[in-house]
Amino acid sequence: MTTATYTVTGMTCGHCVSSVKEEVGEVPGVTGVEVDLATGLMTVESDSPLDTARIRAAVEEAGYEVADKR
Amino acid sequence: MTTATYTVTGMTCGHCVSSVKEEVGEVPGVTGVEVDLATGLMTVESDSPLDTARIRAAVEEAGYEVADKR
Repeated sequence: MTTATYTVTGMTCGHCVSSVKEEVGEVPGVTGVEVDLATGLMTVESDSPLDTARIRAAVEEAGYEVADKR
Repeated sequence: MTTATYTVTGMTCGHCVSSVKEEVGEVPGVTGVEVDLATGLMTVESDSPLDTARIRAAVEEAGYEVADKR
């Protein structure tokens, strides 16, 4: 199992968190997504390493930005 | 037609606005709801005057507060 962490910016409430989790959760290979609203920390679990660009695109699809991959 | 305006607090994004509009829109008699995120101004249209308590309850059901009826 692979765990990658990112910083997501622009989220202001629980609805935003839900949107990000939903979009990232739909990326093929993703098995789990956790997002902390206060810090913007997003933890993505997958069976194998994923292309960061796919995760970034999903976050942007939800309407937010990946500031950096930690 | 009756128009009543309220100040709603706690909304931080467009998802919040959608939640408020959905809940208030379900109150019997309501024919239209507009919400401005920046100011918190909510305008509720109805065929006849509505009980403020019903509107307040709907906003709270969405997870926000009515600060005052203007």
